Amino acid sequence: MESGGVPDVVVLRLPLYVRALSQLLAAGCEVVSSQKLGGLLQVTPAQIRKDLSYFGRFGKQGRGYNVRFLRDELKQILGLDRKWHACLVGMGFLGQAIVNYPGFAPEGFDIVAAFDSDAEMVGTTVQGLTVQPMGELDALVRGGSISVGVVAVPAAQAQEVIDKLVDAGVHGILNYAPVAPQVPTSVVIRNIDPVLSLQSMTFYLLKEAERASGR
Amino acid sequence: MESGGVPDVVVLRLPLYVRALSQLLAAGCEVVSSQKLGGLLQVTPAQIRKDLSYFGRFGKQGRGYNVRFLRDELKQILGLDRKWHACLVGMGFLGQAIVNYPGFAPEGFDIVAAFDSDAEMVGTTVQGLTVQPMGELDALVRGGSISVGVVAVPAAQAQEVIDKLVDAGVHGILNYAPVAPQVPTSVVIRNIDPVLSLQSMTFYLLKEAERASGR
Repeated sequence: MESGGVPDVVVLRLPLYVRALSQLLAAGCEVVSSQKLGGLLQVTPAQIRKDLSYFGRFGKQGRGYNVRFLRDELKQILGLDRKWHACLVGMGFLGQAIVNYPGFAPEGFDIVAAFDSDAEMVGTTVQGLTVQPMGELDALVRGGSISVGVVAVPAAQAQEVIDKLVDAGVHGILNYAPVAPQVPTSVVIRNIDPVLSLQSMTFYLLKEAERASGR
Repeated sequence: MESGGVPDVVVLRLPLYVRALSQLLAAGCEVVSSQKLGGLLQVTPAQIRKDLSYFGRFGKQGRGYNVRFLRDELKQILGLDRKWHACLVGMGFLGQAIVNYPGFAPEGFDIVAAFDSDAEMVGTTVQGLTVQPMGELDALVRGGSISVGVVAVPAAQAQEVIDKLVDAGVHGILNYAPVAPQVPTSVVIRNIDPVLSLQSMTFYLLKEAERASGR
């Protein structure tokens, strides 16, 4: 996916910067040094300066960053200052859980269409969304304003569904299936990865077990 | 949570290091420089050396890291060289999706108990797990080997459920509810955050829209 030369891990970090800056702003902090911001995010000040340098000059040497300006600039760079439409494929347990997830809309992400291959499911209504048959996906996505496809189908069907979404013109995929699907370079995919969260948790559980056993 | 002075973001990065090192190993690479590893992970070589320095000396100056040794050491540090038992609370759409998720067991995470407050759900069997009533949670967790609680209840119930898990002796929480629950400092919590994934996707969607409109 075209990124203007910005490494993906830098793009992955930017929303964390936006959150930290929003928290600083909410706490009444108007100016922040790369040291302080780095402390909040636990990355080196040099890494922060390097990350931000891809997008221009945001701070004056020795003066720190204007919190609101930097936050608003990063939101604009990330496209978080607008609404995005998504469709959801797979209305099983996971799909229904996603449609009921209350965290998307406040952040500007609206699920505006839902699809399923199960004839029993098609035509039912979940959270105001009428489930459409897969045969409608291409026309609905192609003719509409949908830029993100959320994939909540079983692993064995994920690649086929993602191919359909990409063919219909979706450029962003949020994949919940535990597979690593292939997409063209014109498409960005993010995989929800609960295992990664668990793998960074057990470090502490080991420490706690050592403490409890008096080592 | 006690971390021996290691910042949490460093702990969060370690599983990514383990994955990258496993990929290098699978590709037949036996020695890697911090430059090359940094290139794979898109962090600066200095950041990698700093992250690893919390755990000892893994490489010789100018000689690079032994890939297998570093991978195995990091797995041991993270506790990924053993099995972990988890319980799941909330057997609605999301809970059932989680129990059916095939990605946990191969990485050493076994869901060994499931709980729900709904009397209709209690006693049913999902993937070989018989759903227990919430009243059994304390005794089952306290008497057993469960160290992780996976929380898949609605947002309004999440804090109460997490308090119950913590009271019963669970030290790790994987929370799917879209809230930011409070836990004692002796407990580590990870929140599944699909919004963060979407927020790092729209950057590319903007670029693609600009390209398509010929800007």
